[in-house]
Amino acid sequence: MTLVDQMLETYPADLGGIDRRKLADCIRECYACAQACTACADACLSEDDVASLTKCIRSNLDCADICFATGQMLSRHTGYDANLTRVMLEACMMACKSCGDICAEHSHMAHCRECAEQCRRCEEACRALIDSLG
Amino acid sequence: MTLVDQMLETYPADLGGIDRRKLADCIRECYACAQACTACADACLSEDDVASLTKCIRSNLDCADICFATGQMLSRHTGYDANLTRVMLEACMMACKSCGDICAEHSHMAHCRECAEQCRRCEEACRALIDSLG
Amino acid sequence: MTLVDQMLETYPADLGGIDRRKLADCIRECYACAQACTACADACLSEDDVASLTKCIRSNLDCADICFATGQMLSRHTGYDANLTRVMLEACMMACKSCGDICAEHSHMAHCRECAEQCRRCEEACRALIDSLG
Amino acid sequence: MTLVDQMLETYPADLGGIDRRKLADCIRECYACAQACTACADACLSEDDVASLTKCIRSNLDCADICFATGQMLSRHTGYDANLTRVMLEACMMACKSCGDICAEHSHMAHCRECAEQCRRCEEACRALIDSLG
Repeated sequence: MTLVDQMLETYPADLGGIDRRKLADCIRECYACAQACTACADACLSEDDVASLTKCIRSNLDCADICFATGQMLSRHTGYDANLTRVMLEACMMACKSCGDICAEHSHMAHCRECAEQCRRCEEACRALIDSLG
Repeated sequence: MTLVDQMLETYPADLGGIDRRKLADCIRECYACAQACTACADACLSEDDVASLTKCIRSNLDCADICFATGQMLSRHTGYDANLTRVMLEACMMACKSCGDICAEHSHMAHCRECAEQCRRCEEACRALIDSLG
Repeated sequence: MTLVDQMLETYPADLGGIDRRKLADCIRECYACAQACTACADACLSEDDVASLTKCIRSNLDCADICFATGQMLSRHTGYDANLTRVMLEACMMACKSCGDICAEHSHMAHCRECAEQCRRCEEACRALIDSLG
Repeated sequence: MTLVDQMLETYPADLGGIDRRKLADCIRECYACAQACTACADACLSEDDVASLTKCIRSNLDCADICFATGQMLSRHTGYDANLTRVMLEACMMACKSCGDICAEHSHMAHCRECAEQCRRCEEACRALIDSLG
């Protein structure tokens, strides 16, 4: 059991009917994706052909900001707002899809390949959580 | 002319057809709203009846995170992605509406009244920018 | 009176003896610097010679993250911790000095010139607030 | 091997002599601590005696912001700045110590106990990394 699970496990109130496992997965993927995208943006900055990677860097930075905001929001349960959760998950899913697609075009660079895979995992975790919201 | 305008004015490339004035307004309101919501959450923590304000505090924290992520994204123009911009603006508009409504219920507290007004300004700036995206 | 001042003015408890005006100035400069550095990093990405600006971009991104964290922390007063405030202000001052120096080397680019000036203002506001902490 | 390690492993340039394993540990703990503190702040908001936990909540929020900024900064290596890294690690170490101490006072609440342990791990990872900087 990871720390994210433990923090959910020890929450002193009801989680509002949300699927605990899908929530924990999504929180984990959001923080992991924020880190991977931040690292990938910087790795792109260290490539010789950085001039051809500027769109990828911007996409990484957007995705990192949105994933972090989503992870933060999903870590809070007091006064849970299903509508806001859903729209934020949709924004996050779209940011991850967009960044994952761009990184996948550069999969000859190992950092973009790893980052693309993380974006896919986060996108899927967001979708699984949205679907479970009913 | 504010610094946000100057940073847009000195941008070395095209802004992608976005309305520069509405963009600048929205960026400014996003950062101002992140600050106001962070301050309002803490002011609520200092109120005697904090127990009745927990939903407001959570809403403030969500709104701060989302407004900051939106302000960051809007401050970047390289590889501009209209679809992602739109969905993030919608998330931000919804977070501001929700937080503004909750704070407005506590308008006898001056910090919630000020914060509610800032949330309205940010909500409107997001809507004006979305409408201008066509 | 700006919104930052109003949020301080309406705070329901004591601010712990901190100089209200220097605090408000520093909060404002931190958020303004987070925005300017984020915008400058992206403007650098749009320059033809982006390959020569990678250190500047990284410095902008670090400074944006640290200024935002500092602005957030300074916006909270409940359970004020003078030691932590001081060390965070020192980190922020150093990030601003470093980023301001690097941007000043590129002052032929208007975005770096504007950003360097904002970094100076934020650095000075942090120093003035530290000095007032006694 | 975790994703943080993989992103470091695939970095296309030199890491500037920093200890890769200590760096990876510290990055991981910073993001984990940002999440745990955000979750703990919200769990405190759901406790019946929230009024006695306001200092803990503020400390959690400060620690989350500082840990995230530190994790972001440590995830970037282009234009590495040893002095800034050191002062930011010191700020993070202090935030984690302070938050860990406050949470440890409430260790009868499982979320504060878990969060205190995470703050200790992050504090130690920051210290180990600082020591390795020489």
